[in-house]
Amino acid sequence: MLDKTQLIPENTLITNSPEEGRALAVKIARLTIKITQPNAEIRDQLRPVYANDAAMLIAIGQTVALEFSTISKANNYWR
Amino acid sequence: MLDKTQLIPENTLITNSPEEGRALAVKIARLTIKITQPNAEIRDQLRPVYANDAAMLIAIGQTVALEFSTISKANNYWR
Amino acid sequence: MLDKTQLIPENTLITNSPEEGRALAVKIARLTIKITQPNAEIRDQLRPVYANDAAMLIAIGQTVALEFSTISKANNYWR
Amino acid sequence: MLDKTQLIPENTLITNSPEEGRALAVKIARLTIKITQPNAEIRDQLRPVYANDAAMLIAIGQTVALEFSTISKANNYWR
Amino acid sequence: MLDKTQLIPENTLITNSPEEGRALAVKIARLTIKITQPNAEIRDQLRPVYANDAAMLIAIGQTVALEFSTISKANNYWR
Amino acid sequence: MLDKTQLIPENTLITNSPEEGRALAVKIARLTIKITQPNAEIRDQLRPVYANDAAMLIAIGQTVALEFSTISKANNYWR
Repeated sequence: MLDKTQLIPENTLITNSPEEGRALAVKIARLTIKITQPNAEIRDQLRPVYANDAAMLIAIGQTVALEFSTISKANNYWR
Repeated sequence: MLDKTQLIPENTLITNSPEEGRALAVKIARLTIKITQPNAEIRDQLRPVYANDAAMLIAIGQTVALEFSTISKANNYWR
Repeated sequence: MLDKTQLIPENTLITNSPEEGRALAVKIARLTIKITQPNAEIRDQLRPVYANDAAMLIAIGQTVALEFSTISKANNYWR
Repeated sequence: MLDKTQLIPENTLITNSPEEGRALAVKIARLTIKITQPNAEIRDQLRPVYANDAAMLIAIGQTVALEFSTISKANNYWR
Repeated sequence: MLDKTQLIPENTLITNSPEEGRALAVKIARLTIKITQPNAEIRDQLRPVYANDAAMLIAIGQTVALEFSTISKANNYWR
Repeated sequence: MLDKTQLIPENTLITNSPEEGRALAVKIARLTIKITQPNAEIRDQLRPVYANDAAMLIAIGQTVALEFSTISKANNYWR
């Protein structure tokens, strides 16, 4: 439990590759939802709502794109 | 009460780590809502509305992503 | 009335602190609405509409986040 | 009519001040709508629709914020 | 047909002026819709839907603003 | 299956041209939806929903614009 982070896994934006950076973007987007709705049961109920709704899937895509923009810059685009 | 800030806690964007930076992003997003709707009772009524609505949780995620982008740059990505 | 600005108070993006920069972000976001709907009476009618609507409060938060991103860069993040 | 621009007035992003830059942001946002809906009569009918709708006023604010971000960078924030 | 591009006309983000850059922003925004809905007949049916809807016109404006931000940076703001 | 990526094809943001960069933006936007809704059958059902809806086509365009912004920077705008 020591020094455990809730919002940014491993407390860093630096990753080894674009793929890992993208996975981090997905993860931190989900962790924001978790902190806003801490009840796991309610989150479980909401999951099928957005996973089956075209508009919400697109909105999730926009969120991930925003997070990935930040992570990509942090990693100097893995150039 | 001296010099108390309402919008940016401790009046700085600089944090010690990505985790703290993310927590700040969440906090300043909430403070914007507070200044727009200063009535605590009404905010308490609205909280379950967005915390139980998939689309609104996603929209909150977009807001936090935008704030975090700014805070990350301010901290040179904690590199 | 001399040289009075309508959209950017004091005609500058430079502020003394993050808190003042955030307040400016809120202000210029409101001034955009004012120029789009110049009728004060109608704006007064619309205020409770968005201040009591969770989705709109979130959308206002996104707008302020975008303005704050620009103002933060202008001030080199008050580093 | 010589060299008349339709999308960017005077064909430049450079302005003398933040206030003028903001006015340009508002103007180019409107010109995008004009090119997408070239019929002036229909635009006149739509104007009261968005000017009296809180959600749309906020969305216009987001558009102006995005345009202003670009114009501010172009002008090196008028520092 | 040789080397014909579908998404970025002339395969470059560099333009001679802000006006041309803005026109490119509008064009690539449209080409994304074209690749997502390749059926020209359906696109023709959808056009009056968004051209007569205030909220959609605003959303198109946001898209063009985002594309223009990228194109402006690519051209170093035509300074 | 060795080292296969799920989110970023070929695990790089670097492309040969704007056209390829734009195609990558479209692809990674789709892969985010795929990871959020892994059921191919449901995705097939949702496709006509968004491809025939003007508002969703515009929202997809915003997502692609955001992804393309990141990819363009990664490639130094192919200048």
